[in-house]
Amino acid sequence: MEMEQAVKDKWEAFQELLSKISSYNEAIGLLHWDLQTGAPRKGIEVRSGTIGVLTGELFRLETSEEMGEFTAFFGTPEVASQLSEVQNKIIKDCRKEYERSKSIPSKKFEEYAALAAHSQSIWEEAKANDDFASFEPFLSKIVAFKQEFIDYWGVKDTRYDTLLDMYEPDLTVAKVDELFDRLRSRLVPLVEAISASPNKPDTEFLSQIYAKEQQEKFGLFVLEQMGYDFDAGRLDESVHPFATGLNPGDVRITTNYLLDNVTSAIFSSLHEGGHALYEQNISKELVGTPLSGGTSMGIHESQSRLWENMIGRSRAFWQRYYGDLQQHFPEQLTEVEVEQFYRAINSVANSFIRIEADELTYNLHIIIRYEIEKLIFNEGLEVKELPKTWNAKYQEYLGITPPSDALGVLQDVHWSGGDFGYFASYSLGNMYAAQILNTLRKELPEFDSLIAEGNLIPVKEWLTDKIYRFGKSLTPAQIIEQVTGEPLNPDYLADYLEAKYTELYKL
Amino acid sequence: MEMEQAVKDKWEAFQELLSKISSYNEAIGLLHWDLQTGAPRKGIEVRSGTIGVLTGELFRLETSEEMGEFTAFFGTPEVASQLSEVQNKIIKDCRKEYERSKSIPSKKFEEYAALAAHSQSIWEEAKANDDFASFEPFLSKIVAFKQEFIDYWGVKDTRYDTLLDMYEPDLTVAKVDELFDRLRSRLVPLVEAISASPNKPDTEFLSQIYAKEQQEKFGLFVLEQMGYDFDAGRLDESVHPFATGLNPGDVRITTNYLLDNVTSAIFSSLHEGGHALYEQNISKELVGTPLSGGTSMGIHESQSRLWENMIGRSRAFWQRYYGDLQQHFPEQLTEVEVEQFYRAINSVANSFIRIEADELTYNLHIIIRYEIEKLIFNEGLEVKELPKTWNAKYQEYLGITPPSDALGVLQDVHWSGGDFGYFASYSLGNMYAAQILNTLRKELPEFDSLIAEGNLIPVKEWLTDKIYRFGKSLTPAQIIEQVTGEPLNPDYLADYLEAKYTELYKL
Repeated sequence: MEMEQAVKDKWEAFQELLSKISSYNEAIGLLHWDLQTGAPRKGIEVRSGTIGVLTGELFRLETSEEMGEFTAFFGTPEVASQLSEVQNKIIKDCRKEYERSKSIPSKKFEEYAALAAHSQSIWEEAKANDDFASFEPFLSKIVAFKQEFIDYWGVKDTRYDTLLDMYEPDLTVAKVDELFDRLRSRLVPLVEAISASPNKPDTEFLSQIYAKEQQEKFGLFVLEQMGYDFDAGRLDESVHPFATGLNPGDVRITTNYLLDNVTSAIFSSLHEGGHALYEQNISKELVGTPLSGGTSMGIHESQSRLWENMIGRSRAFWQRYYGDLQQHFPEQLTEVEVEQFYRAINSVANSFIRIEADELTYNLHIIIRYEIEKLIFNEGLEVKELPKTWNAKYQEYLGITPPSDALGVLQDVHWSGGDFGYFASYSLGNMYAAQILNTLRKELPEFDSLIAEGNLIPVKEWLTDKIYRFGKSLTPAQIIEQVTGEPLNPDYLADYLEAKYTELYKL
Repeated sequence: MEMEQAVKDKWEAFQELLSKISSYNEAIGLLHWDLQTGAPRKGIEVRSGTIGVLTGELFRLETSEEMGEFTAFFGTPEVASQLSEVQNKIIKDCRKEYERSKSIPSKKFEEYAALAAHSQSIWEEAKANDDFASFEPFLSKIVAFKQEFIDYWGVKDTRYDTLLDMYEPDLTVAKVDELFDRLRSRLVPLVEAISASPNKPDTEFLSQIYAKEQQEKFGLFVLEQMGYDFDAGRLDESVHPFATGLNPGDVRITTNYLLDNVTSAIFSSLHEGGHALYEQNISKELVGTPLSGGTSMGIHESQSRLWENMIGRSRAFWQRYYGDLQQHFPEQLTEVEVEQFYRAINSVANSFIRIEADELTYNLHIIIRYEIEKLIFNEGLEVKELPKTWNAKYQEYLGITPPSDALGVLQDVHWSGGDFGYFASYSLGNMYAAQILNTLRKELPEFDSLIAEGNLIPVKEWLTDKIYRFGKSLTPAQIIEQVTGEPLNPDYLADYLEAKYTELYKL
């Protein structure tokens, strides 16, 4: 249907509001990036206030009367029928955000944003000093805010459902319980069989001293190989690696170099590189709209994990790149065969730190966090009880008890920034990734040999064509259906892991 | 007088508006800093839009009805008498900014801002192609806008006075004429005597190849020595060095390393370091108010020049630090004596380019620009006449005629962005610095030996106590009176330069 002139004009005015919102998001993104990558310590407090002010202003724009009127106008059936699909999706998302945010008084939200920003630096110190007590009052306040927000937003089936939906639209406790139950039922026997296997890889050589400069060089090389565009991004260092898309022409990643661990930076670069490929390849037509971003945390995570694990920890990948790695570290790796390296980087072990976990037990780390968050929000578990609960769950699921809070409850940044409901998406990401990989292998039958040749660009292009370019214009459910022909199914991940680890551990 | 509760409450509301304005300034400052220090190329276009949106919002806040009402309320004698001096200064500055900005129709200002942005890129090309004609129509329009703005802002004694006041509050043509006449009458004979002197220093060794890593190490060392606080700042690279105070706990500087010029980065670090010391040491009580910044361009520049030239190019400084520099560059400098180095970094030459000029002839470059700007705004000199006028002035004051407009009238960025009235503050800075140094030497009689011992902190502390901490709460006139007991007097600069160069060139 042809768009009427009056509707066209109104859309232009609306687009101006959307661009403004994008601008605030970009500025806030940069303020955060800067805090993590080198902002001087003494400026943090004022900076937190600045982030609070801009976040508050963004919030005001998203919940402005203008936004209410625009979304109401464009939402009427008569007008909606004149809009494109993308335009209708913009209206739908803006309306949802509008209604969700509208419910929170802006003063309160500003207070919360400043607290969350400050709390992250407190967490950093608390982790460094293994001092949960110094972090506890901040975390308690964050949880109290979130509890209050849940009431404002409206409780779904359970209080925690409201938080899950923020990161993965329409996700519910009922669904996650089902997916995680199925996954756990297939992974637990696999982990047990591996524990019992006598075929343990030797991993000691991985923890020699590996010079940072060489690690950085190799990381840059790998990012270039996977098609990360350095004219539209940059690599920096931060305590906790992350990727941030300020705009599609400015998608930054960070990593953290450990001298006695050569794989940490490599796999974090592949991981954040996967996130970044997604953001760099979103269609330029979506710039300046709220659809210019990944469609959900789960789909985002599927891309980081597909690149980190399914490509980056594959035998084919190291057939091609192990020689390069050896050249970067001749002293450490000349005597180590590629197969020995491949087995070492896929060693399965019950360990304390989620981000260093293997791709198999990783899912158990997630299930623990998911259950604890459910306890906090649905059962009222108090923040001061977290270390005890945390340690008990680790004992239950992984048979180990963290020797310190730094290696336990303080290890992740998420809670310090108020990101409750986020963790589940990591395992959803693994599931999405395995299901997408299954289709990718069918549609690109030469997949393994492309990887083994170091020809990664066709893979990036397939993913761009199927997923990246759409940004948020398709929902996660639409994406997974459109790419694979069926809804999310945890069996693909279980199949993938069983096949890989049965062969690897000769089960 | 005790403040009434109603006034107190209103001040709190006003303070919130001020904090908001500070926050926007910080965010815009970071967006600019990032553009200069490593933002990826492909993100620049969207980024420019983001800066535009935030700058527009800042402008809206500074000219809001709210601002008008607050400043009117706190400006009434009855209320003003209840405010502190600092509070009254805040009101005065906000009102001035409000009235100045408010007077220009916002449509017209937007038009001008777009022109100025465009004009800067035209200038860049024109300079690269030595093509003044392509820049002329743009510069003519900029001048026409400024002439119109002067009418909006209100003509002071002369039209050009209105522009001078933007950068140095209350500065007038009458005052600058007097200052510059006096300065010129003493500097011109000095420059002539130096030209005639047979005692020319050897400077060739300065342009050997000096490795960047070593330059950076030495620069960091010098900044640390002068008391630059790296917990409240950081050093990065950019094409054009600058300092930017995001907040007093986050004052960043940049430098640019030239491989075949060892002094460029050293003196730019000292220069930007001087700006940064000022901003880092502003009283924390002024944070979140418009007084948390240097009081004027001239006073700011006095600090960069005091550290760069009067300390950094002194014999005492290199008595202490030359050994360190030699250790950083043994191959290049072992054979060079400290006295030879000292003379080389103080070589005087009549040259075309302002930013490469020595500290003596630099002032003549400024006087030329000042006189030309006065001709434009007070005498109606046409833009197309600028190259001719420029070249004639260079011949008159420096005895040289630029061989091209690129090395002449096109060399500076200022006019392309509409910054008329700015140049004078560079020489004011030199004058302020010399006058302040004169008092500093009296109050800290061991000044030379402190410098020669590398004990720079007492100097920083004296400057903090006398100047830095006040931020904008004192005017430039108050500062110079309070510190030195008299108004700005150009003889101190002339005395300093005569003494230094008479000895150096054995005149």
